[in-house]
Amino acid sequence: MKTLRMSSYEEIAKNARLAGNILKTISNSDRSKILYKVHDGLKENSAAIEAANRLDLQISKNNGLSESLVKRLDLFKGDKFETMLQGIKDVADLEDPVGKIKMARELDDGLTLYQLTAPVGVILVIFESRPEVIANITALAIKSGNAGILKGGRESVNTFREMARIINSTIAKFEKETGVPEGAVQLIETRDDVSNLLMQDQYIDLVIPRGSNALVKQIKSSTKIPVLGHADGICSIYLDEEADLEKAKRITLDAKTNYPAGCNAVETLLINKKFPNWYEVLLNLSNEGDVTVHVTEEVKDAYVSKLKELNKYSAKIASKTVDINEEQDFDGEFLSLDCAVKFVSSTQNAIDHINTHSSKHTDAIITENEHDAELFLKGVDSSGVYWNASTRFADGFRYGFGTEVGISTSKIHARGPVGLDGLVTYQYQLRGNGQVASDYLGAGGKKAFVHKDLDIKNITL
Amino acid sequence: MKTLRMSSYEEIAKNARLAGNILKTISNSDRSKILYKVHDGLKENSAAIEAANRLDLQISKNNGLSESLVKRLDLFKGDKFETMLQGIKDVADLEDPVGKIKMARELDDGLTLYQLTAPVGVILVIFESRPEVIANITALAIKSGNAGILKGGRESVNTFREMARIINSTIAKFEKETGVPEGAVQLIETRDDVSNLLMQDQYIDLVIPRGSNALVKQIKSSTKIPVLGHADGICSIYLDEEADLEKAKRITLDAKTNYPAGCNAVETLLINKKFPNWYEVLLNLSNEGDVTVHVTEEVKDAYVSKLKELNKYSAKIASKTVDINEEQDFDGEFLSLDCAVKFVSSTQNAIDHINTHSSKHTDAIITENEHDAELFLKGVDSSGVYWNASTRFADGFRYGFGTEVGISTSKIHARGPVGLDGLVTYQYQLRGNGQVASDYLGAGGKKAFVHKDLDIKNITL
Repeated sequence: MKTLRMSSYEEIAKNARLAGNILKTISNSDRSKILYKVHDGLKENSAAIEAANRLDLQISKNNGLSESLVKRLDLFKGDKFETMLQGIKDVADLEDPVGKIKMARELDDGLTLYQLTAPVGVILVIFESRPEVIANITALAIKSGNAGILKGGRESVNTFREMARIINSTIAKFEKETGVPEGAVQLIETRDDVSNLLMQDQYIDLVIPRGSNALVKQIKSSTKIPVLGHADGICSIYLDEEADLEKAKRITLDAKTNYPAGCNAVETLLINKKFPNWYEVLLNLSNEGDVTVHVTEEVKDAYVSKLKELNKYSAKIASKTVDINEEQDFDGEFLSLDCAVKFVSSTQNAIDHINTHSSKHTDAIITENEHDAELFLKGVDSSGVYWNASTRFADGFRYGFGTEVGISTSKIHARGPVGLDGLVTYQYQLRGNGQVASDYLGAGGKKAFVHKDLDIKNITL
Repeated sequence: MKTLRMSSYEEIAKNARLAGNILKTISNSDRSKILYKVHDGLKENSAAIEAANRLDLQISKNNGLSESLVKRLDLFKGDKFETMLQGIKDVADLEDPVGKIKMARELDDGLTLYQLTAPVGVILVIFESRPEVIANITALAIKSGNAGILKGGRESVNTFREMARIINSTIAKFEKETGVPEGAVQLIETRDDVSNLLMQDQYIDLVIPRGSNALVKQIKSSTKIPVLGHADGICSIYLDEEADLEKAKRITLDAKTNYPAGCNAVETLLINKKFPNWYEVLLNLSNEGDVTVHVTEEVKDAYVSKLKELNKYSAKIASKTVDINEEQDFDGEFLSLDCAVKFVSSTQNAIDHINTHSSKHTDAIITENEHDAELFLKGVDSSGVYWNASTRFADGFRYGFGTEVGISTSKIHARGPVGLDGLVTYQYQLRGNGQVASDYLGAGGKKAFVHKDLDIKNITL
């Protein structure tokens, strides 16, 4: 991993492409071996990394960065450094994502078509300040046979530089043994570099921004390279007429309060007017979860009068019930203990709201009615569609992916929580013994194709 | 299908999104049924379509269009119209591409995750002048549950308009019966419309340009919407040191001459210097296939002196052997009976040339040496990597896809020949009975995930 400043951007991208071409041919055991060496190198040099990290922390404090942000930069808080190191070994030990046979088809005697997973090639990853991400991305890129160009946040530059130096020299040291080339991972430092690299669509195959919504949008409009973006997490839960009240209370409380800053936290509640005792759900959110509900006029009128009727309207509830701003509250993330609430008149109505306002992340229906559930699961256009479960399950580790590249709100290539499979694509291999198209029907010949699918379980190439 | 002129571009895109949301929920049998109705409608109105087509042909002739181009516009030449009609029924009869289970995993008791194919949503297809394409794209879009916005070439505008009118009124007539909404397919007419639609990334999910390389590039640089593009077909064949001479002769002749204008025709021959009798391959191409070889100085010297030595150097061969223009001949398509030829010194050398110059379409190695073949298949970064077979096999029908959306040279989403699976993406469905994340490890709870993969063959949802 080089800290490149003098080289042209085209040279960085071209180096990555050359490294990617080599990485593509390296065995899983060699890719895993170099990750173990990188692990060892970082572990042995922890003192130097810690010194660089302390420098970053000091500079950030001097620059008046907020305490919570400074905390995110601290690589040696608790067991963060050890967790980072373990993460490298965990990725190394995962099943090889490259060369998996996805389809095999006999086109004719001795002419067989295979579809196999293959690395995407060169990925450009832009991420925020947490310095442990560099180790994570390095592991993911090499394990999946991709060359990576990495751009981290400015606040961690000294930590990055030190870690890059170690990773780089480790890869170089073992290049002969593992075949993994030095240019496999390259670090760039300034914001300017990114905009120039975004023009290298000849060499770079995929951009993965891990940062703010604004960053992702800006990147999408300034490049021809495909972007695997995580835009927003505007998740909704729809409480159907036949929702189970206890499930509704438990799931909404979990989805809103378990980690409100998470992109899989719920931001909007859509309540079917005919759902009995729906107000208990809001009451539970505010009383148990300290949640402020942002309600439409219709909901407010019904809610307040109902609570007064039942003698449940308290000063706390009054303070936790505010008027919604319809212009924005359905189209953005609160990322806090706040939730937008409105009535809908049917499941279809809820689907229409979600398809218009959600960010295609994860949306759930709570109901005991199978027909409505199936309609919802089929009609909602998001990467995750849930029935009677919390939106918080939208997560690579919970899905069992072993690792998580990010959560995509793109609609193609990779959707939702993305594991290593988001860093591979596929190729078609055709293995013959001299066949030509002109012998076959459609290209001048008389032979017909067989097109017989083979059981991929029995095939090794 | 509406011929929209007055509506704003946003309205067109928004209508498509609304139609797509409905299409997503419609059963395969209803999607197929409307295609049969469209088939019948076009068949019954063939006289009106033929009149419109004759008008287009007349205008094109008056405008001085070349005869071969005018021929492409003629929808009633031979059995073209019947083939087009049959194509609609063929697509209708294909297996449903939507709702296929690709993965099923038990996360815990009663909490199961499914990965299912789902329509991409709204696709914008821009295609050249052949009028039959409108029927093909209509069938593909509806079958895969997508709303389509279609833009055809100006030269066929009258035929398009007439077919659009018929398709549109057929869909409207049977909307109650099949549920397929009128906005499922919309036709736009002028070039200006496209550039405005390319800005509707909020509503349109995928752009598929089927036209020139320049068109694809221009579209990629003017939109944030992902583009499924077919850029170029710069295909190479590498003749290894251990190539079988007969296979080499047959395959190169087929790959170059079976259909030179095809994107899967070979454009570059890379010859290992140590391949004995390599000159027989060039001789065969020129003598049997009338191919002009564009050779490097090194190849020319060796070729001419060898042929003279063997008394095989004729006037015809002399006229079919020209100096290569290295600046351009390795980086573009001839699309004619021409082929660039150079020597390489190893398989790795050939791989490097291909990864630098090819358009990542399809490349082949001819060899009897398994080690070199495997190195080539692993090292070349193209959508199709072939061993001892002609590049002309790169085709959706030959691959057994039933239909072909196009041939993609993009690296993600869909590569190579693209069938209906290029028009679908996937969603994750999570089906539970009230589970919340905070009960599980990692989110505050004590329960562990099970992560047990289920056999998808036994599952119907």
